[in-house]
Amino acid sequence: MSTKTKNAGAPDTRARIIRAASALMQRQGYDGTGIKQIAQQAQATLGSVYHFFPGGKQELAVAAIHHGDREFAEELSAALDADDDPAAALTALCQDLAAGLAASDWPAGCPITATALGPAGRAPDIQAAAAAAFARWRALVHTKLRTAGIPDPAAHDLAHLTISTIEGAELSAQVSQSTEPLEIAGRYLAQLVRAAR
Amino acid sequence: MSTKTKNAGAPDTRARIIRAASALMQRQGYDGTGIKQIAQQAQATLGSVYHFFPGGKQELAVAAIHHGDREFAEELSAALDADDDPAAALTALCQDLAAGLAASDWPAGCPITATALGPAGRAPDIQAAAAAAFARWRALVHTKLRTAGIPDPAAHDLAHLTISTIEGAELSAQVSQSTEPLEIAGRYLAQLVRAAR
Repeated sequence: MSTKTKNAGAPDTRARIIRAASALMQRQGYDGTGIKQIAQQAQATLGSVYHFFPGGKQELAVAAIHHGDREFAEELSAALDADDDPAAALTALCQDLAAGLAASDWPAGCPITATALGPAGRAPDIQAAAAAAFARWRALVHTKLRTAGIPDPAAHDLAHLTISTIEGAELSAQVSQSTEPLEIAGRYLAQLVRAAR
Repeated sequence: MSTKTKNAGAPDTRARIIRAASALMQRQGYDGTGIKQIAQQAQATLGSVYHFFPGGKQELAVAAIHHGDREFAEELSAALDADDDPAAALTALCQDLAAGLAASDWPAGCPITATALGPAGRAPDIQAAAAAAFARWRALVHTKLRTAGIPDPAAHDLAHLTISTIEGAELSAQVSQSTEPLEIAGRYLAQLVRAAR
């Protein structure tokens, strides 16, 4: 294999490893996921996993959280951009999340919660990555609410509530194996946004 | 040791084992918690853990979830009983939960979430126990809202939202190491309850 081919393949392998770590930790948490399983799912050798992530599982968890952060940020941005009215956009987002959870047979909830909860979440770099993800998602909602004419501190507080409520409704939906918590959350978030405008 | 003494000690040992399993799984999740560690924390032998829980860790997880269910149900009932006005009661509850999380240095969130998330939560008996806990907590809020004069379906929906939002705000507070998500959640839940009365 020429150096050129090797270099060209490297980002793909690294990306595959991160996607595998993210998908497995989303469903199994940090402690339930082994590096061997990540390598298998990524169709990579254990050697290449350690080559890209010499810090092992903890470094992989940080990369997985960054990946989940970007992934949900894209979904959230697309949902918020889809409707000028933030109330309608949030209702539609909750419906989409409910449909996605049901389609996954419930395990595919928040991409970072299962990784960030538990002892791993107290590792400073994992905690910081998870906190940054929540902050970015709140910032996206905050910008949308401000653009729609809601002043601070209401926009700030509603952005906080939106992310908390969506997180909790996803969790309730998973635990209860029902889309109802997300449907109800979408309706009340819309009501609060309309009241604030 | 007489049979009488042995029988008298048995419920204590069993209860200690359940409390240890509940406390450890709350902070570490199912996969992060070993039976040996549960035995150590309960000051019980591994033999007595298997005597009381022949089904091993999975049976212990179900007992731990039932324990966490009752524990939070008592806290929730006490908070709801403390004020005739459900809006004020929910605000005070969120403040208490925020103070408790901060005092625990953030790991002591929902007593069952970390156990119920991940592959263990797909075991039918663990899933059923977690779903029953969420349903019981919602029922307590629902009764309080109905008693305060809020009709269905608003009371039903608000009870769902309350548990989802508290769960998500606890999670946000843990991830962000901040009491702000719970303080904001308490204010908005109160606003929605007042609007529904």
